[in-house]
Amino acid sequence: MIGPVHPSRGSLSPLGIDQARLTSGFWAERQQRNGAATIPHAHSWLERTGWLGNFRLAAAGELAPHLRQGREFSDSEVYKLAEAMAWEIGRGGDAPLDELSIVVAAAQEPGGYLNTMFGRPGQQPRYSDLVWGHELYCYGHLIQAGVARLRTGFEDALTATAIRAADHVCVEFGAAGRQFLCGHPEIEMALVELYRVTGITRYLDQARLFIDRRGQATLPDIELGRAYFQDDMPIRERAAFDGHAVRALYLASGAVDVAVETGDDKLLAAVVRQWERTVAARTYLTGGMGSRHEGEAFGDDFELPTDRAYVETCAAIASVMLSWRLLLATGESRFADLAERTLYNVVAASTSLDGRSFFYTNPLHQRVTGAPMDSSKPWPRASSSERAPWRDVSCCPTNISRTLASLGGYLATADGDGVQIHQYASAEVRAGETGLTVETGYPWRGDVTVRITETGAGPWRLSLRVPGWAGEATLVTPEGTERVRSGYAGVTRTWRVGDQVRLELPVGPRWTTPDPRIDSVRDCIAVERGPLVYCAESVDQDPAVPLEAVAADRSAPVVEHPLPALGPDAVALDVPAAQLPVSANGWPYGSHGDGDQEVGTLRLVPYHLWANRGPATMRVWLPQRRG
Amino acid sequence: MIGPVHPSRGSLSPLGIDQARLTSGFWAERQQRNGAATIPHAHSWLERTGWLGNFRLAAAGELAPHLRQGREFSDSEVYKLAEAMAWEIGRGGDAPLDELSIVVAAAQEPGGYLNTMFGRPGQQPRYSDLVWGHELYCYGHLIQAGVARLRTGFEDALTATAIRAADHVCVEFGAAGRQFLCGHPEIEMALVELYRVTGITRYLDQARLFIDRRGQATLPDIELGRAYFQDDMPIRERAAFDGHAVRALYLASGAVDVAVETGDDKLLAAVVRQWERTVAARTYLTGGMGSRHEGEAFGDDFELPTDRAYVETCAAIASVMLSWRLLLATGESRFADLAERTLYNVVAASTSLDGRSFFYTNPLHQRVTGAPMDSSKPWPRASSSERAPWRDVSCCPTNISRTLASLGGYLATADGDGVQIHQYASAEVRAGETGLTVETGYPWRGDVTVRITETGAGPWRLSLRVPGWAGEATLVTPEGTERVRSGYAGVTRTWRVGDQVRLELPVGPRWTTPDPRIDSVRDCIAVERGPLVYCAESVDQDPAVPLEAVAADRSAPVVEHPLPALGPDAVALDVPAAQLPVSANGWPYGSHGDGDQEVGTLRLVPYHLWANRGPATMRVWLPQRRG
Repeated sequence: MIGPVHPSRGSLSPLGIDQARLTSGFWAERQQRNGAATIPHAHSWLERTGWLGNFRLAAAGELAPHLRQGREFSDSEVYKLAEAMAWEIGRGGDAPLDELSIVVAAAQEPGGYLNTMFGRPGQQPRYSDLVWGHELYCYGHLIQAGVARLRTGFEDALTATAIRAADHVCVEFGAAGRQFLCGHPEIEMALVELYRVTGITRYLDQARLFIDRRGQATLPDIELGRAYFQDDMPIRERAAFDGHAVRALYLASGAVDVAVETGDDKLLAAVVRQWERTVAARTYLTGGMGSRHEGEAFGDDFELPTDRAYVETCAAIASVMLSWRLLLATGESRFADLAERTLYNVVAASTSLDGRSFFYTNPLHQRVTGAPMDSSKPWPRASSSERAPWRDVSCCPTNISRTLASLGGYLATADGDGVQIHQYASAEVRAGETGLTVETGYPWRGDVTVRITETGAGPWRLSLRVPGWAGEATLVTPEGTERVRSGYAGVTRTWRVGDQVRLELPVGPRWTTPDPRIDSVRDCIAVERGPLVYCAESVDQDPAVPLEAVAADRSAPVVEHPLPALGPDAVALDVPAAQLPVSANGWPYGSHGDGDQEVGTLRLVPYHLWANRGPATMRVWLPQRRG
Repeated sequence: MIGPVHPSRGSLSPLGIDQARLTSGFWAERQQRNGAATIPHAHSWLERTGWLGNFRLAAAGELAPHLRQGREFSDSEVYKLAEAMAWEIGRGGDAPLDELSIVVAAAQEPGGYLNTMFGRPGQQPRYSDLVWGHELYCYGHLIQAGVARLRTGFEDALTATAIRAADHVCVEFGAAGRQFLCGHPEIEMALVELYRVTGITRYLDQARLFIDRRGQATLPDIELGRAYFQDDMPIRERAAFDGHAVRALYLASGAVDVAVETGDDKLLAAVVRQWERTVAARTYLTGGMGSRHEGEAFGDDFELPTDRAYVETCAAIASVMLSWRLLLATGESRFADLAERTLYNVVAASTSLDGRSFFYTNPLHQRVTGAPMDSSKPWPRASSSERAPWRDVSCCPTNISRTLASLGGYLATADGDGVQIHQYASAEVRAGETGLTVETGYPWRGDVTVRITETGAGPWRLSLRVPGWAGEATLVTPEGTERVRSGYAGVTRTWRVGDQVRLELPVGPRWTTPDPRIDSVRDCIAVERGPLVYCAESVDQDPAVPLEAVAADRSAPVVEHPLPALGPDAVALDVPAAQLPVSANGWPYGSHGDGDQEVGTLRLVPYHLWANRGPATMRVWLPQRRG
């Protein structure tokens, strides 16, 4: 059994979700809650909205156009839930996947075509709207669900349906087929993964065709430009990720998969270069990507507004998928660093503490307190000041679910030298003859203890990632104690059962300042603590300290407090606050006083926990007090 | 003959475009160029794109759906050009309006319906898509064209067509008709103006119906919310302008017209209150309004990004229309102040120096140099780093044209006490028995000389606006010299022909600082000079001073230079520049040095003149040098 992404080449080999198992703590709790709350929640909404019912009507030949429910991509939510269930079952949980698989399989047509939106009397014909219709995108998610099922040891209706769909795509869109693309990349990585699990090369060939076909101006020049679909230039020629963020990051993930499997080092290098530029100039402190509401898109370099940050949850998940692929391909810790940042500060932030409501956008500044969310119906908009239980476009909940259910697969890897631990969580890890346990209070505490529970006879290397945010850490091994720098620290030795290695990371609060080219946060500071970005939320503040014009004094000490309302280990931070002088004459330019005034204390909470206590305003970045 | 907007009540009475005539200088040159270049340019593009041809095909009964050209609102461009031509003829210019009027009139159907997009075999039925179809919006522009023609002394095919359309609307959408709205407000002010020029009260009644009908959730709850169409709450209850900026400002203008004509002081007060909040928290330094690309909309308070400022040219024109109405209603100089700011820094900026290309959006920061504009075809997008000759959505050029052609009407007013001069331009003004000339080098120079050329026997008051930006000025009258403060300064006396009044405004450069609640410009400074906002454009800079991370030192003197490349009187400003330290390790947070470094001189040019020398980057706001 293995987990998501299993390249046949690359620096590191992933471990399966049965080989790296979360046992307790931050992510284990979220994984449990995903199985107990989020998966059933999504299942019930798929029934309630009729998006699953579409398949039943299709199988019965009763799907008249006016009966079909949901947007053009609603089939994909069913597939993403199926993938989540497959991983959940794979990690030892329970979920009614068989039932779902039968519903999906029954709707597939002879020849492998499957989509509830197209091709029936009164519907648009098959493949008549590849630009916006999402048919190949939906197949991608179906195939990923099938791959998850195969990797966790099953061959069933779902896997057969996925393979039939993939075969259909290879005929319809192959070298001799329609020379066209889906408006939304996704199928590329799905096909490579199916190749990896089946060994059938036509899936890889088809993925490479789709990668190479994109960027030839096949899709129309819409108001947002062809960059929206990444069809303005070949991915090999891009300087940074552009256009719709989820599309760009899914495409890049598929490109890495193709590059790794075909030995196309130039393509891999192109994606790495784009990742670097994007991280240097188009990424939020939270790891979030996608600056623009218009087109759900990346912006220009340093165009990173806080209040209108789009930072779609699905783009964050796509970024983690991409970082993981680049980590496996290169073995470089910077990719695991970004995945960590994104997991703790966007993926974790996206979901409420009860696992039943979700952010679609994840801004770094909420200016206005919205009305309390009406949980009885899908929320019609991407933005909200609270998490919504479901949306008309509800791509995030099922995407979160499949990620959390398979999260064990992102913790650790192996290579010829030994075992590498990339993300810290209490866990049990097995790789070949090696067994170990990880115990940690991360992210609240900085201690990580690894204990050897099984080992072969020869020497091997245990590597632990020292995150970039830490700069340095202390590593205590049976060989002694040493200061280690960001990157991978480790020790090679002949291990014995019971040996321990302890990493001590400096998780204390630290002030962060931004590059001055980022307009929205110029002259501001933020507080981070370990991998967590903090924010000020209005519900915590004294009314005398409105967030609108607050300033923080970085010369003052930051005081830690427990935050029991948001978790037994959660830590809040207090900093002295001042109020900035604001305009009062009706024109906000050139007319306000100098100097600010200390007014009290500002309480900061982990960003990922905000908006769990009712509607609020919030800001991550705080203007600096100048005195 | 009179000009745009002629209320029957209010503090001030407008003068006609034959009574206030621009003679030379900044606006006279633009008005001349509008007649000589922009009107023929727009006319030729309306032919080339087939938007005018739609009317010919309609009249011939040959407008098959596949032959109709342009977007659903393209008819309105023909009407706005007709209005521009009407004012151009009214001010003594020449334009082929008769020809255009005949083409339009011939397409009108029995009963008064007129729209080339709807109602023919194969087209959607009339009024089947009021939400997006713009039928009433188009009538609004047709009626405004008819009003312009009537006010300038003509009754012809155009005026008859406009009146028939208005009568049709009053039947179809009256109290006993369709209880619905147009998605795009516009017809409200057109109907009130038609009432003003004809005295027929049903037009006023219909306008009031439309104003009161909006805000009742008649239109659908789209992704952008009903605020997009201002249908989320009645205009009487709003706190600030919200949603699509052009729609909001056209609606507010219509509401003021209705309020003034019906004596509805509460409605007028509501719009004034919204204007105040919008100016205090939702307006750019240039006077531009509309912060968001998404929905072309106002944002939250203090959500004013510079790089993604939408600031649609048409919203600026709508803001001038609104300010002018509020000035007439109240006599308060703050409305003329905002109109001045908007005219010099958005309306003037929107058009190239040759009068043949136009900005749709007017951001305050251009980060990326685009490719040179291809002038051979309509530009498909709202944004561009250069002005475009025409667009698929080309609302701006004809809106600019009708504004410039009628601009004389915005200069001065009269009331029972005398004459008020609101905007400074060399001009001849007549009001009743009074005649005067204005001579000025404004906006480059601050001297304004008014000379009495005719006068009645009794005393009357000459009032001159002292702009808010000036704070104080010097007024030299036959009675003596005095320091006067922002607002209206003047003198009441029995004038004699040849008497002079001289206003001396301090147009020297000044630094402006922003309210700290505006994220995008925190810790920045801008330079203004008289009514003009300045900017740094990359074409003027030493390559050693890239704009990306430039800082300006406000303690240093600003040096003035002539700028002959952009006009005989144009003034450039030089300030010492420093470079800010930027991140260099691939992550833009927490990793760059302290202290900046002086690198040379930064040249600033008037914002309205930028992008006349090829593609460039640009910024209005400059980070402050901290040393």
